[in-house]
Amino acid sequence: MHKSLFVLLLAAGLRAAAQSPTPLTARLDKVSLSFALGANGQPSYSIAYGQKPVVQPSRLGLVFQDNQGFDGALTLTGSEVKDVDETWQPVWGEVKNIRNHYQQLTVHLRQKAAPGRRLDVVFRVFADGVGFRYEFPRQQALGNFVVLDELTEFALPADHQAFWIPGDYDTNEYLYTKSRLSAVDNSAQVKSSTEIAVRVAPDAQAVATPLMLKADNGLYINIHEAAQVNYPAMQLHVDRASHRLTARLVPDAVGSKAFLHAPANTPWRTVIVSDKATDILASKLILNLNEPSKLANTDWIKPMKFVGVWWEMQIGKSDWKYANSLDTLDAKGQLIPTGRHGANTQNVKRYIDFAAQHHLGGVLVEGWNTGWEDWFGNWKENVFDFVTPYPDFNVQEISDYAKSKGVQMIMHNETSGAATNYEQHLDTAYQFMNKYGYPAVKTGYVGRIIPRGEHHDGQWMSNHFVRVAEMAAKHHVAVDMHESVRPTGLSRTYPNWMASEAGRGNEYNAFSIGSPPEHETIMPFTRFMGGPMDYTPGIFKLQNYEPTGKRQVQTTLAKQLALYVVLYSPLQMAADLPENYNEHLDAFQFIEDVPVDWDDTRIVAAEPGDYLTTARKAKGKDEWYLGSITDENARQQPVKLDFLTPGRRYQATIYADGKGADWQKNPAAYQITKQVVTSKSTLTLRLAPGGGAAVSFKPL
Amino acid sequence: MHKSLFVLLLAAGLRAAAQSPTPLTARLDKVSLSFALGANGQPSYSIAYGQKPVVQPSRLGLVFQDNQGFDGALTLTGSEVKDVDETWQPVWGEVKNIRNHYQQLTVHLRQKAAPGRRLDVVFRVFADGVGFRYEFPRQQALGNFVVLDELTEFALPADHQAFWIPGDYDTNEYLYTKSRLSAVDNSAQVKSSTEIAVRVAPDAQAVATPLMLKADNGLYINIHEAAQVNYPAMQLHVDRASHRLTARLVPDAVGSKAFLHAPANTPWRTVIVSDKATDILASKLILNLNEPSKLANTDWIKPMKFVGVWWEMQIGKSDWKYANSLDTLDAKGQLIPTGRHGANTQNVKRYIDFAAQHHLGGVLVEGWNTGWEDWFGNWKENVFDFVTPYPDFNVQEISDYAKSKGVQMIMHNETSGAATNYEQHLDTAYQFMNKYGYPAVKTGYVGRIIPRGEHHDGQWMSNHFVRVAEMAAKHHVAVDMHESVRPTGLSRTYPNWMASEAGRGNEYNAFSIGSPPEHETIMPFTRFMGGPMDYTPGIFKLQNYEPTGKRQVQTTLAKQLALYVVLYSPLQMAADLPENYNEHLDAFQFIEDVPVDWDDTRIVAAEPGDYLTTARKAKGKDEWYLGSITDENARQQPVKLDFLTPGRRYQATIYADGKGADWQKNPAAYQITKQVVTSKSTLTLRLAPGGGAAVSFKPL
Repeated sequence: MHKSLFVLLLAAGLRAAAQSPTPLTARLDKVSLSFALGANGQPSYSIAYGQKPVVQPSRLGLVFQDNQGFDGALTLTGSEVKDVDETWQPVWGEVKNIRNHYQQLTVHLRQKAAPGRRLDVVFRVFADGVGFRYEFPRQQALGNFVVLDELTEFALPADHQAFWIPGDYDTNEYLYTKSRLSAVDNSAQVKSSTEIAVRVAPDAQAVATPLMLKADNGLYINIHEAAQVNYPAMQLHVDRASHRLTARLVPDAVGSKAFLHAPANTPWRTVIVSDKATDILASKLILNLNEPSKLANTDWIKPMKFVGVWWEMQIGKSDWKYANSLDTLDAKGQLIPTGRHGANTQNVKRYIDFAAQHHLGGVLVEGWNTGWEDWFGNWKENVFDFVTPYPDFNVQEISDYAKSKGVQMIMHNETSGAATNYEQHLDTAYQFMNKYGYPAVKTGYVGRIIPRGEHHDGQWMSNHFVRVAEMAAKHHVAVDMHESVRPTGLSRTYPNWMASEAGRGNEYNAFSIGSPPEHETIMPFTRFMGGPMDYTPGIFKLQNYEPTGKRQVQTTLAKQLALYVVLYSPLQMAADLPENYNEHLDAFQFIEDVPVDWDDTRIVAAEPGDYLTTARKAKGKDEWYLGSITDENARQQPVKLDFLTPGRRYQATIYADGKGADWQKNPAAYQITKQVVTSKSTLTLRLAPGGGAAVSFKPL
Repeated sequence: MHKSLFVLLLAAGLRAAAQSPTPLTARLDKVSLSFALGANGQPSYSIAYGQKPVVQPSRLGLVFQDNQGFDGALTLTGSEVKDVDETWQPVWGEVKNIRNHYQQLTVHLRQKAAPGRRLDVVFRVFADGVGFRYEFPRQQALGNFVVLDELTEFALPADHQAFWIPGDYDTNEYLYTKSRLSAVDNSAQVKSSTEIAVRVAPDAQAVATPLMLKADNGLYINIHEAAQVNYPAMQLHVDRASHRLTARLVPDAVGSKAFLHAPANTPWRTVIVSDKATDILASKLILNLNEPSKLANTDWIKPMKFVGVWWEMQIGKSDWKYANSLDTLDAKGQLIPTGRHGANTQNVKRYIDFAAQHHLGGVLVEGWNTGWEDWFGNWKENVFDFVTPYPDFNVQEISDYAKSKGVQMIMHNETSGAATNYEQHLDTAYQFMNKYGYPAVKTGYVGRIIPRGEHHDGQWMSNHFVRVAEMAAKHHVAVDMHESVRPTGLSRTYPNWMASEAGRGNEYNAFSIGSPPEHETIMPFTRFMGGPMDYTPGIFKLQNYEPTGKRQVQTTLAKQLALYVVLYSPLQMAADLPENYNEHLDAFQFIEDVPVDWDDTRIVAAEPGDYLTTARKAKGKDEWYLGSITDENARQQPVKLDFLTPGRRYQATIYADGKGADWQKNPAAYQITKQVVTSKSTLTLRLAPGGGAAVSFKPL
């Protein structure tokens, strides 16, 4: 997959310890990295952007269960620096080519005391940030070991603005808070967020990553991790006085963090930095730090849009379950149907018809299989078997019907958090998908995890998610994981792991107070930094869609369209009901047109919490699509069309907020206009409060 | 499978509560059961044998996590009594026909307070004891629930002698202690038993079941459980002052005991009682309380004897592992062999040859698959994949060779305690066995359990063992589970679950101080009450078999032969090395002859801790085999041969301790004599200290 590979070794061999007193440094463009070993043998690093400090000298290290970790008293035995500049092509994504250009500093450390265990710290310095990780080389004194704590710190030089959610072992579905680091306290939010099923956040000053920061000196900084494999998720404890962030790893059932065997390594810790917010969103640093695809053949992996029997359950129009409870049985011991079961053959065919009519590739159906009477909140292990349909869901008939219409069915495997149960049924479940031709599966892990005592974001579950991705790949099935650990770029390594949820999606507008207009302007800087999210955009009926009548989706209709561009996923849902789309088929045309795979992407304008405008070029076509969104404030967004091919004329179709549009009072007002533009044109988009605009550019 | 079924309903309908004041009673022969509901609404029961109290009034009840369990304030809503007398045939076993004759009392209870949950307590009174369990009927107020504690008590009337091992969450491999109940304290033993890999026994007064008791008034009492499914193992806390035993359930990773959903039931709690020790061993009460076979077709299940590449590793002659560690690699990254790997093709063929020559059905090979360099003590999850052989083990060649010799290979799946890893590989592992024609598998769970925080004897692992038995059955593979929960008669329900270890087998003589001569006289009264054990008898080289030269098997050679009769297993190993058997082929003839499936069994004489003599009739043949063993004391054991067919003459071949035989000083002295006997004859067997005798009776 490598288009080009250019490696320049600056230092071919080891520099002997005596010849390389710390600090050791690496640099690319404005980003510089410095490593030092203190007099006490404690390693530390710092990062600067030009002259501005990004991370001040910060501790590195690990604590092991046997007290022979790397928490100090280390000696430097050598180091190497090399430059890499290569370009690779993702299987799908936001751009066609990705440049991977960095300078790497490898630092070799050894314990001063016996048994003299060895540790490498590897830094990769990119033009837009730094990634570093701990590597444990194969060595006699380090076979199996248990990580109790990681000591990695990120000492920030000032009290930055932070966009954060609580550091929770089991969920990333909180609303974002914007505050100074000195004000971080998640306790009230954790307590009050009752719309989230499982909340375990024992550290009131812990925040999740990706953590987005904005410094008063104009720097934008994003801290996350890349390639989180065989290791728990990292959270960050905020020292509110010193603005020092410390890694906190999600524990397992017995309080340990990671069981490892050398050779091994931690995930990469990533610091993306720029003086332009748009650079943060354009960064490919996290993808670059992931391993290339492990799948030899990826031809079968196809991005797609889909509708689904799903939103109707979220808004209470129908149910996942077939009967009221497992105890509502007729004389023969059969479940007595409520008549409100959404996943019935007739209803599913309605969605298939709609998908076929509007050239959407897939139809997701939730609630098709037995178990939903008793799926939630009981920490129950054997809720689902993943292959037994309810009596009113004719899997063969639906499969045949979809095929006849050129539509593919998307499987749904909710696990109730019982990962053990899912693993027991994996073979059977994926054989079932193959038998009926399902090309993709949406998985779910709502509830407390089984193995009991484990957490969604611990090492064991992180490994589980990878196992599921591997099993799916073996069966040529794409995966969209809900309630998984938040992504860290692993879709590069497992390109069939096309999307995750692991964040607060549109669904919260159905069953909770929802998410405010700024939400989607923060998500790209946080949750989406790790990879695609199945956010389920495209709600057209923005008011009076659920029983209380009191909730509303806190965007305009035009903004829902814009989300298809600003929130990237190769599996992208048109989440609303066919009958609601049928009310606005002119607007739906944008959803029908917009691609889910791109050759190029330009972040036109961005400010976290305020606004975002993104333009993307369709895969293999000279068509561009643009999305522009704002928070609760109306805005005029000028867009220079210099990304269009010079000298060519394009028909621009502009789906904009209508006159008087306002997310709160008049969300459905939109207007669609067309105009001819060239690369020299400038569009000025008028975004309503909570509004947005979507534009397609097709060559004339 | 039912030969006959005779059910007499003593009380056809419900007795209304007003009409049935407690106590409610049931009785069969000498055994009587009484149920009472106290003024406080607490249920209790008592058991008597004739006029002798066996269990004095003892509490019943359960505590739930939601505080709405059945710990008191219950009201009696009705009861029924019925008699059952039926006979059934096991797929294999100690007898051809098993009579299941009991009087059943069902007590219906309801909470006085809302939500008025209902509980049934079902008692079955047999001629040799009582089984009872809690049943949770389907009801609206009891869907999913969590059992925190079971309150069942066994209030014993006096300070009985007890044969006990510590109540440990993870092992049953302790030596037995004989003491009064008032002297039960396991703490010193738990601490010192370093030969057992994992020991978790937080309650110093807890003992495991089966618990064997002997009362000063001449009663023998055995307390255990039957059909332990979807529930943790029960241990017993001993109140040393009052002699009251209280159920203690093995907890899960979060401290709960059982997650259940009504309708559900607990295992049966069993109290077997008689004034004759032999009756305890002859009891079929536990098997009778298990469900009939769940397997429709059981023709493929074949009892067999086997040899194995195993004892040679136990005694340090060869290794399970192929290389010294995962880090001893050659330049190509391949493991460097130590040259001591036991499971190599050539060595395995030697065992196949021996098995073929002596008409043993199978050859077990341990250490055949990759992972053994790093299998022990690291709480590591992905040690084994269960299908990858070491380079020197040619699975196809071995499979072909065995087939050509009429011998079957027995698979070995050690899991290192990582049940999650095994479940991930189950499908593949059993497909592999089918591919190469393995009819049986020995599993192992050495080490701490993964899911971390779970225990060998908790609900989750109990369910795991059943899942393995079911998966094996699906693939027509028999299972012999090592380090599993101790059995409770489930081989009736899963006849392919032919044996378990779950006790202190002969192997302890290889790597520890071993087990004293009385050990095998206690085991039938304790561990074997739940079902067959893969004890691995048949060691002929009883001294100087391991590197230190200090250990010895604490029996005579003749006693090793006797174990084939007194310790029943349908999968029975000839555990010693072919070269050691070749030194005593005359004695080995008994092992070659002795069956592993029986039409009848007579317990001739028995006293726990002292002696045991058992005679069994071969399946479908008029041949009898007898085993007689003693503890450290020499004994003369007269045996009336009235079990032989009257009027028929038999050649008795007597394998007895030789002159001067003594387990400590002269264990290998044996003598083989033949004599003609009839049903009117009496043999007097002379058993040496730690000795025994084995006899075959073949019709002339």
